[in-house]
Amino acid sequence: MLSKRNPQLNSHGELIHLLSIEGLPKAVLTGILDTAGTFLSVNDRDVKKVPLLRGKSVFNLFFENSTRTRTTFEIAAKRLSADVINLDIARSSTAKGESLVDTIANLSAMHADMFVVRHSESGAPYLIAQHVAPHVHVVNAGDGRHAHPTQGLLDMYTIRHYKRDFTQLRVAIVGDIVHSRVARSDIHALTTLGVPEIRAVGPKTLVPGDLKEMGVRVCHTLEEGIKDADVIIMLRLQNERMSGALLPSAGEYFKSFGLTPEKLRLAKPDAIVMHPGPINRGVEIDSAVVDGAQSVILPQVTFGIAVRMAVMATIAGNDA
Amino acid sequence: MLSKRNPQLNSHGELIHLLSIEGLPKAVLTGILDTAGTFLSVNDRDVKKVPLLRGKSVFNLFFENSTRTRTTFEIAAKRLSADVINLDIARSSTAKGESLVDTIANLSAMHADMFVVRHSESGAPYLIAQHVAPHVHVVNAGDGRHAHPTQGLLDMYTIRHYKRDFTQLRVAIVGDIVHSRVARSDIHALTTLGVPEIRAVGPKTLVPGDLKEMGVRVCHTLEEGIKDADVIIMLRLQNERMSGALLPSAGEYFKSFGLTPEKLRLAKPDAIVMHPGPINRGVEIDSAVVDGAQSVILPQVTFGIAVRMAVMATIAGNDA
Amino acid sequence: MLSKRNPQLNSHGELIHLLSIEGLPKAVLTGILDTAGTFLSVNDRDVKKVPLLRGKSVFNLFFENSTRTRTTFEIAAKRLSADVINLDIARSSTAKGESLVDTIANLSAMHADMFVVRHSESGAPYLIAQHVAPHVHVVNAGDGRHAHPTQGLLDMYTIRHYKRDFTQLRVAIVGDIVHSRVARSDIHALTTLGVPEIRAVGPKTLVPGDLKEMGVRVCHTLEEGIKDADVIIMLRLQNERMSGALLPSAGEYFKSFGLTPEKLRLAKPDAIVMHPGPINRGVEIDSAVVDGAQSVILPQVTFGIAVRMAVMATIAGNDA
Repeated sequence: MLSKRNPQLNSHGELIHLLSIEGLPKAVLTGILDTAGTFLSVNDRDVKKVPLLRGKSVFNLFFENSTRTRTTFEIAAKRLSADVINLDIARSSTAKGESLVDTIANLSAMHADMFVVRHSESGAPYLIAQHVAPHVHVVNAGDGRHAHPTQGLLDMYTIRHYKRDFTQLRVAIVGDIVHSRVARSDIHALTTLGVPEIRAVGPKTLVPGDLKEMGVRVCHTLEEGIKDADVIIMLRLQNERMSGALLPSAGEYFKSFGLTPEKLRLAKPDAIVMHPGPINRGVEIDSAVVDGAQSVILPQVTFGIAVRMAVMATIAGNDA
Repeated sequence: MLSKRNPQLNSHGELIHLLSIEGLPKAVLTGILDTAGTFLSVNDRDVKKVPLLRGKSVFNLFFENSTRTRTTFEIAAKRLSADVINLDIARSSTAKGESLVDTIANLSAMHADMFVVRHSESGAPYLIAQHVAPHVHVVNAGDGRHAHPTQGLLDMYTIRHYKRDFTQLRVAIVGDIVHSRVARSDIHALTTLGVPEIRAVGPKTLVPGDLKEMGVRVCHTLEEGIKDADVIIMLRLQNERMSGALLPSAGEYFKSFGLTPEKLRLAKPDAIVMHPGPINRGVEIDSAVVDGAQSVILPQVTFGIAVRMAVMATIAGNDA
Repeated sequence: MLSKRNPQLNSHGELIHLLSIEGLPKAVLTGILDTAGTFLSVNDRDVKKVPLLRGKSVFNLFFENSTRTRTTFEIAAKRLSADVINLDIARSSTAKGESLVDTIANLSAMHADMFVVRHSESGAPYLIAQHVAPHVHVVNAGDGRHAHPTQGLLDMYTIRHYKRDFTQLRVAIVGDIVHSRVARSDIHALTTLGVPEIRAVGPKTLVPGDLKEMGVRVCHTLEEGIKDADVIIMLRLQNERMSGALLPSAGEYFKSFGLTPEKLRLAKPDAIVMHPGPINRGVEIDSAVVDGAQSVILPQVTFGIAVRMAVMATIAGNDA
């Protein structure tokens, strides 16, 4: 879906849209993580605002409903002092027969500065980035099964925070990988950052075989998958994307792939457990693990605000 | 539902959450009313803003839809310069199988400062207050039939504004008391403030008998209920909470318990008429009374903004 | 619907509500266009904010859903530094049996400063303007088939921008005029500004005959309608307002009244093409015209933000 010339970068190689982690230079990626670190301290202050986007208009265009992700972007933008416009786009003029491209052109003409886009179709943020006016920046907040780059970035921030050096790590991604844009974004980011061993763990129906071509080790048992891992990223079953025939029963799934305290002992003793949420306790993960000492699930959320602030501040500072 | 140690207060006896008027010390209650008085003048200024919550994030978590109440909190928070995040929580990740406690933990991790919670289940704000991070304050914006403390507080502000001294008053609460969280909050507040005679007025099906144990005089005719009253608080029929068998016809109900100008003459000549809204003219109250000289229904709304500002400013200033 | 004394103006002839372009003095109308010109430069600045409405509360009351129009008002108000409250009014307390007038009185009591009203009933904003407190200003954002004055004003701004002098122009309004509040507002504005020839163009079912009494030339072929025109305003088919029997097929309609590059050659060579959106390409207008050199459809949107800022700033500066 990426054109040869990376549409995320301007001619100076600076980030102007965040569409995917695939194709993102390592320096750009680590630059965002560094900037996020400075914003994290802003969020600990009493007045959690910086004026970096003051007078800028950030539009939340959620063609697919996601209250949680929209909220994180809204908070991030407001802490940068931007004006935030939430568009209930599903009920909007597209319903009156207007095309996506016309909707985008129209909103761009309102002196928009940034579109945060969530869409059920893979590639929609790319289409939008191709049609916005030059002063508008686009952030992909999840498109179909394709990518969820800010989640990928916050996962990398979390791993770096706890593990420092990517080049010595074993990272296991466990669960419904085939439907997961998070998994795809994580794999690209981990590869860029030099992680030597990435494992995709799950039943055959949920782990695509072509991951091997990306240098990922595919494991069809949880035991093999998390053995001696430093980082375990758990994914929920995306039931809403599965037909009945493919749908494993929650009980069966938990027995084979649910992460319990017992199974977690197979990983390194200081392994961290991550999850992008929402969590289904007792389906993909045991409550004792969610609330346990190795869980970094809530810090992920906190880091996510700072990472999204960093993405917005970075792209808003660069011209097309 | 309240634990022995009052979860609304910190170890210095300062308010950190507003969950219920029950158990609220009189000094805290009158302190909020005093603070509201100072905010009322802010709302009369040309620039209706004070920077008390600048950089704070207030989340409106309305699990039960209430545009009117949400709006009053949104206005109050914005006049305190907070960032307000409205969560369409009914359509949110809880629908993906996540528990309330996990949703709250997740939102807390976004550096939230305050949750304003409306929920159809009694006690939900208590559950939330028990699970938020120490830096997060909770305001109950109505839970089931249990409590609606900010409405209770604005009712007290209104009564004090017009009547000054609580210790000489007869207050009649008329209507669908059994389904009303407002009635319950008012009764607790009136008791705390020393009102000597509180009357609960309505048909037997709508007035719970156990009110007598709270020192409330129960009256089953409007005439007896409002005779020589100083304050009359009218409640609407909460049809949405009644089954068909219990539902009185609007016409029948109005004949017995509708407040008309004629019946109002039974009260003291300077009695005030209050109503929390929304009003159903011709059902529980005659239009001529709503729009008459004794009605303070619209001032209640105005005071409500100042009272909610006072609640938010008070709890945000105290540490857990 | 207008009372004899124009309810939009105070006793000094200053604008306090914007309800309709009908009855708006020419000086007031051109004053708004002049003010919009100064705001247009604000929107080109890096920090697109001015403090004119700081501390004011603007309520978006959209009884009829229109994400696009609501968004333009929200952006305009935020660029004036107002607090914006979006009310999901369709799901609100009106559903609990409360009347429009009571809802408005209630919201006014919250120290509102401005109501932006969209309603499916013609005249609703007038009713509201009659019942608000003196400190509240009302802007009609579209009422039934009656009026859409800010769209009319932005159309005038656009025409003045490109054509300068109204008194030499031929303006053709093409399409579903009978259902269009935009057409009605445009005709009033063009008449006030001295346009000598206004044409209403469309099939007999979609062009009301009484337009002739307003001095409008009615044309039932596109060729006659746009011949030598300076300005062409295209309207979409408002299918949602038509019953099946009246509904022309998109293909048939396009053949007779769709604006193609070939037909556009009948107009003056420097004619501009306008459209209030949303656009249905291939129904009322050919894609090549939408994207062509004579199209000013996107500049209309940009001007619309500045015009709405000008309307809000103008009325907020005048006392009842």
